[in-house]
Amino acid sequence: MDLENIKYNEAGLVPAIVQDYETRQVLMMAWMNEEALKLTLDTKKATFYSRSRQALWVKGETSGNTQAVVKINYDCDGDTLLLQVNPNGPACHTGNTSCFYRSLAIDQDANLGNMEILTMLYDLIADR
Amino acid sequence: MDLENIKYNEAGLVPAIVQDYETRQVLMMAWMNEEALKLTLDTKKATFYSRSRQALWVKGETSGNTQAVVKINYDCDGDTLLLQVNPNGPACHTGNTSCFYRSLAIDQDANLGNMEILTMLYDLIADR
Repeated sequence: MDLENIKYNEAGLVPAIVQDYETRQVLMMAWMNEEALKLTLDTKKATFYSRSRQALWVKGETSGNTQAVVKINYDCDGDTLLLQVNPNGPACHTGNTSCFYRSLAIDQDANLGNMEILTMLYDLIADR
Repeated sequence: MDLENIKYNEAGLVPAIVQDYETRQVLMMAWMNEEALKLTLDTKKATFYSRSRQALWVKGETSGNTQAVVKINYDCDGDTLLLQVNPNGPACHTGNTSCFYRSLAIDQDANLGNMEILTMLYDLIADR
């Protein structure tokens, strides 16, 4: 138990990334204080610290969408945690499996202008 | 491009989780300011903001271990990013593929007392 390796920020918190143990999908990120981390280790139920409510929260305590923690890793700086969990329902309050359900346009196709798309279509048809 | 949905903290930063696009392994977490995010979107090379050096850094600029960004998602609160990348080498300065190479003991076996282990061994031998 290398708890002394974990470094908390000036607010006494450390970010915790939550990943599905089976699918490896990244589900959410939340914050833990030392108590939340110890409770998570003891109960094996993901427990965080709510910065808005300034209180501990057991994930899924009211919704039932708890997260059974399989593994906790920490990074080279000791200032970020990675929880691997078996989730008992969606991670997001919106009902999405993951909180990261929206993306910023980045893939090449999405960035193509109309002319480029027409040129690609032209090439495609010419090839047939 | 929903850049207006991204919420930066009081220091003007947003945490960015980096995941391998192919293997889905979580590689690291770093911070971005608005400029780093825009540069990442423009160049498709993961670019962060170093809190210690107070400067932008293109990941792998000196080591060569760049990260080609395939996709950027943001969470329901808009205050965390998830980058999916094709890494050109290890993410960690230690040479490990991922910065999360160490774990806190949590799995059931690791928590077993000596007597439980002896009992398990006894049962195993008795079964043979």
